[in-house]
Amino acid sequence: MARDDTAGLIVIGNEILSGKVADTNSTFLARELRAAGVTLRRMVVIPDEIEVIAAEVRAMQPTVDVLFTSGGVGPTHDDVTMAGIARGLGRAVVRDPSLERKLRGYFGADVNDARLKLADVVEGTELEYHGNQSFPTFRVENIYILPGIPEIFRDKVVALRARFNSTPFHLRVVYTREMESTIAEYLNQTLGQFPDLMLGSYPKLNDPEYQVRITLESKDRDYVERALAALLSLLPPHAVVRTE
Amino acid sequence: MARDDTAGLIVIGNEILSGKVADTNSTFLARELRAAGVTLRRMVVIPDEIEVIAAEVRAMQPTVDVLFTSGGVGPTHDDVTMAGIARGLGRAVVRDPSLERKLRGYFGADVNDARLKLADVVEGTELEYHGNQSFPTFRVENIYILPGIPEIFRDKVVALRARFNSTPFHLRVVYTREMESTIAEYLNQTLGQFPDLMLGSYPKLNDPEYQVRITLESKDRDYVERALAALLSLLPPHAVVRTE
Repeated sequence: MARDDTAGLIVIGNEILSGKVADTNSTFLARELRAAGVTLRRMVVIPDEIEVIAAEVRAMQPTVDVLFTSGGVGPTHDDVTMAGIARGLGRAVVRDPSLERKLRGYFGADVNDARLKLADVVEGTELEYHGNQSFPTFRVENIYILPGIPEIFRDKVVALRARFNSTPFHLRVVYTREMESTIAEYLNQTLGQFPDLMLGSYPKLNDPEYQVRITLESKDRDYVERALAALLSLLPPHAVVRTE
Repeated sequence: MARDDTAGLIVIGNEILSGKVADTNSTFLARELRAAGVTLRRMVVIPDEIEVIAAEVRAMQPTVDVLFTSGGVGPTHDDVTMAGIARGLGRAVVRDPSLERKLRGYFGADVNDARLKLADVVEGTELEYHGNQSFPTFRVENIYILPGIPEIFRDKVVALRARFNSTPFHLRVVYTREMESTIAEYLNQTLGQFPDLMLGSYPKLNDPEYQVRITLESKDRDYVERALAALLSLLPPHAVVRTE
């Protein structure tokens, strides 16, 4: 009963496209999903524009089990993620009464339009409270709408961990001191025998220890182990630095 | 005669989607393009799959002035970028005679199928030699096909710098010690007066110096300076830590 859950990520932010900020959320999410056995199919970075967000949501949402968005959910003019997702799903943006109460309670006399904007959600959004987080995580249909600030993004992803629990990947790694083009034929032969293997080959420049890192993966542990044995039997013994 | 060139980036690599490797090429390219006055509209990370690459190329190529790809151009089975782009453009993959001669000369008796795969290009590809690079950069139509290895990717982008020379952006930055939701109304008022301003607002957690970094940008220097003056006249004086 291997489960093959898939995911996608839409990062929304002019600051990333303009090189002002390096996106780290995508790398974090990619690692978390992999550890949970979820296959990340696609990540995209788009600007803070309602129509672009809407089109991306429409295109990606039906193709994955779960879709994450990062960014564009703050109180200012350039935070248009809610409006974009709403348009993509054909839903309205509505002010959530429980969030409005929470914000009015927190800000008291200092509440203003910008602060109340944090209570605006896509119609039908589920507010999920995890652990001791004071502000909920937003989910509508299969879309988790996460803030772009890295510290908060990570907290929210970590809190969602238990939710993503697919069959884990089994990974083995071979480090070789041969060039990629020298060992390519052995990789091809291994794939010929094990066509369902996820086989990666990653050259590293200027590393004193190895030239290529080969990764063998599958959700079937035994399949990976047999593929590894086949590959090791093909590679010249001096080619292998070590396996992991 | 402000030129508003646009660009897109397709990063091809299972290793990034699976969290094994953190993509740094996208951040590098974003910064280089911004410095050259080029607007990066979209970045996407997709797997090493011919049909997915072809679909992405078809979707993005007509929407930008120049499209970059990163990754998937090596000698092994998972290097399918050429095949994907070719399919996307409705072109064939062909072996380039000049590259084949170069590879046969370099590898001598050690030449093999994997090595000769490096001479396989999308039909109609221009081979561009820059500086003292021994291997050319590939361009077909408006697509630059770059290798994923960060050192080589960067060398190729730097060598292409002179090619991307749009009207530069003019950027001013204001650091404030107020919360984003406190200053949002001043940002909105500024945008009301300067609707063409690119105005960004980026909160920073746990920074002792400031709470929000506000960026004002345009290709029109005077417009930015007038917008900055307007914003500063709105912000309470104590709110501003400094401007850049």
